[in-house]
Amino acid sequence: MTMLEDKDTICAISTPAGVGGIAVIRVSGPDAVAVADRLWRGKPLSSAAPRSVHYGTIVDGEGRVIDDCVAAVFRAPASFTGEDVVELSVHGSVYVQKETVNALIAAGARLAERGEFTRRAFAAGKMDLAQAEGVADLIASRSRAAHDIAVRQMKGGFSRRLASLHDSLLELASLLELELDFSEEDVEFASRLKLLQQAQELRGEIERLAASFRSGNAIKEGIPVAIVGPTNVGKSSLLNALAGDDLAIVSDIHGTTRDLIEDTVNIGDYTFRFIDTAGLRDTTDTIEQLGIDRSRRAISRATILLRVIDATAPQSIDIADELADGQHLLTVINKTDAATSSAARELLSKETAPGQIIEVSAKTQAGIDNLREALTETAATLIGDTGDIIVTNARHHQALTDALPPLHRVINGLETNLSGDFIAQDLREVLHHLGTITGTVTTTEILTSIFTRFCIGK
Amino acid sequence: MTMLEDKDTICAISTPAGVGGIAVIRVSGPDAVAVADRLWRGKPLSSAAPRSVHYGTIVDGEGRVIDDCVAAVFRAPASFTGEDVVELSVHGSVYVQKETVNALIAAGARLAERGEFTRRAFAAGKMDLAQAEGVADLIASRSRAAHDIAVRQMKGGFSRRLASLHDSLLELASLLELELDFSEEDVEFASRLKLLQQAQELRGEIERLAASFRSGNAIKEGIPVAIVGPTNVGKSSLLNALAGDDLAIVSDIHGTTRDLIEDTVNIGDYTFRFIDTAGLRDTTDTIEQLGIDRSRRAISRATILLRVIDATAPQSIDIADELADGQHLLTVINKTDAATSSAARELLSKETAPGQIIEVSAKTQAGIDNLREALTETAATLIGDTGDIIVTNARHHQALTDALPPLHRVINGLETNLSGDFIAQDLREVLHHLGTITGTVTTTEILTSIFTRFCIGK
Repeated sequence: MTMLEDKDTICAISTPAGVGGIAVIRVSGPDAVAVADRLWRGKPLSSAAPRSVHYGTIVDGEGRVIDDCVAAVFRAPASFTGEDVVELSVHGSVYVQKETVNALIAAGARLAERGEFTRRAFAAGKMDLAQAEGVADLIASRSRAAHDIAVRQMKGGFSRRLASLHDSLLELASLLELELDFSEEDVEFASRLKLLQQAQELRGEIERLAASFRSGNAIKEGIPVAIVGPTNVGKSSLLNALAGDDLAIVSDIHGTTRDLIEDTVNIGDYTFRFIDTAGLRDTTDTIEQLGIDRSRRAISRATILLRVIDATAPQSIDIADELADGQHLLTVINKTDAATSSAARELLSKETAPGQIIEVSAKTQAGIDNLREALTETAATLIGDTGDIIVTNARHHQALTDALPPLHRVINGLETNLSGDFIAQDLREVLHHLGTITGTVTTTEILTSIFTRFCIGK
Repeated sequence: MTMLEDKDTICAISTPAGVGGIAVIRVSGPDAVAVADRLWRGKPLSSAAPRSVHYGTIVDGEGRVIDDCVAAVFRAPASFTGEDVVELSVHGSVYVQKETVNALIAAGARLAERGEFTRRAFAAGKMDLAQAEGVADLIASRSRAAHDIAVRQMKGGFSRRLASLHDSLLELASLLELELDFSEEDVEFASRLKLLQQAQELRGEIERLAASFRSGNAIKEGIPVAIVGPTNVGKSSLLNALAGDDLAIVSDIHGTTRDLIEDTVNIGDYTFRFIDTAGLRDTTDTIEQLGIDRSRRAISRATILLRVIDATAPQSIDIADELADGQHLLTVINKTDAATSSAARELLSKETAPGQIIEVSAKTQAGIDNLREALTETAATLIGDTGDIIVTNARHHQALTDALPPLHRVINGLETNLSGDFIAQDLREVLHHLGTITGTVTTTEILTSIFTRFCIGK
């Protein structure tokens, strides 16, 4: 592991940007208390008991009062970063926040880089990389489901599962060594069978974790729902009805489907990303064909296909054939305030797999709760048993995926009676890839790429 | 004084709205510690030493983990509100912040109203009203000058001055009583002269404070600068040059001059509000006349008139006659990159009071620093001596203004040998108005109107 040698004392505003009642400026490093004391008018913080709070005044280099302040003092190693930490609570004026940081910098601190406090916590062994990434996910979480997964990751649930995989792999390695030691004797065959079984179990577990990423990512980023249907079936009024009064619709989300309309809506415990796709009818128009191609790509990436049929002019689009593994189809008959659903139902009865059918009126809100329920029930199936660990991080998914080929080779080697030396080499590679997840194996590049995604002050 | 009887335990997010590294949720009231303990998993906060911080986990009513948390415990009366207070530092996720508040409400707290924490601090005698208003001004402050005045007010500078006025008035009242006691004797004339001198001194002081509001308000809200000149003299490029790279231009400021272009720019220690007025030439066009009327009103309200003359086509607008008391004129000759200033200077030499003349080129930035300096120097004259108390609050200004008529009557009564009873009544009225400023005299209406201007969580 590359150790972080940086022993500067750092500072940053840790609370959200803007004006509020109070704001917290965090200082961490060997000189944190001395730097804060240079601004402090009150009982010296250097004489403060660890984990105590104090009231005083902070001043700038010219002795001009910046603000009243409450300071919390933490002493290494019992702090978030494992270093000496002072947290200054000042009034939430943008001017006061800025001046406090300026005064701290003038007193010997430097502005923290993005995620630098958490990076120091990692370097001090306060948390592993997967936990640090859980913190970032927690901060970004917008739904109960995403929050739950992030909390579990931050609290070390995923790390413990990885540690247990790691231990099993080490056991495998030591058994392999044992086999090497006694290679002249007759224990080989029995050991090999046992080793093979263990390796296969590990492969099953790693494959399950890697496969959970599709669901995990959907829960974290919002479950992609492609709305399929002609333009006049009331797709956007349906979206508004789903969003309701109290829910934020966030438009213009970053993504690959920029030119499709995309809205993010929280329903129940989940965040859904609704992608309004263009109609899918056959066409000879080149421009329209481009739109259709984009729609098909959006549909192929969606977890849920929400097919909308107009009760007043039913037109079925049979997309059962388009459903990929793990995709769910929900069929909505809209405008039931203006027509009965019989014509639409008639049309759907000719399909082999129309999926769950929900009758709604976006206009009168009738049936909208049923649709919400169908969406959240479908989302719930993504998580599976609540105890299951779900991978939500692309980096972790990559590491798990990278661990599989050497693990295949291990299994293959055991099956084909390959020499233990070769198998041990492949095992080390598996261990290496898993180690990158929690950071027992890491590089400065990996760390930088992880922590620059944090905000400044965290 | 109307006492606040409300003894609920209240909670609110005290840090700025949005996503950040951490957020602080404040709980205050008799049950603050018990309410927080219902969420808390860790060493009970009820057993925590006052002013100590603790690490733990907070959970919702179902025992679901919301977040890791650092809690600071304050015990009455040694807290901001004078009540028991718990400050919960959680990760700055919007979801976590919301869930923490929900869990606190479920555990027995209620959501705080705007300014309710500060209102309780006032009720507990932790600060007076003028100091509380200083806190609000501090939070809103955007410039060094506004910040300095707010800090002084929060720290009680203004309150002490008022207390000294109050003491002098009380002394006057007691001397008046003395006079009443000895009214049959011959001490009256000498006492009256002394009383009159004291009353006149007090009037001078209150008048000075009331008059300081024009400057104080300008410093707090931004010093109004009316840019005067025809449309083609480069007013907006001048504004951009003044704003420079590092300064925020905030457009669409609330105010009465909405239909004039108004930009707020920080220069040096001050905030300036630049109002780009329409040309002032004589016209018979009704619509244009309306614009000119608006311009004249804006000019009449401005502290600084910034007259711009185009060096390439000088056209003078002699506005020396329009200058009101306390208004300052700065004359800028622009476009000196394209022409010498001689023609403009020639024109200005015919004026009796052209004001300070600054030559600039908005295009090349030449002379812009000189203009910035002229603006900040003019602003500095508004504050006067640094020790002077400046009134920045409209409510305080009103109270001071209201105190003057009864004080005039006191003086008049003393001059005309009115009976001490009548004079004492007027004196009580003066004391009443001054008392509303710090809140020794107040009503629920006044308190509500003050604290609803605070943010929730302060």
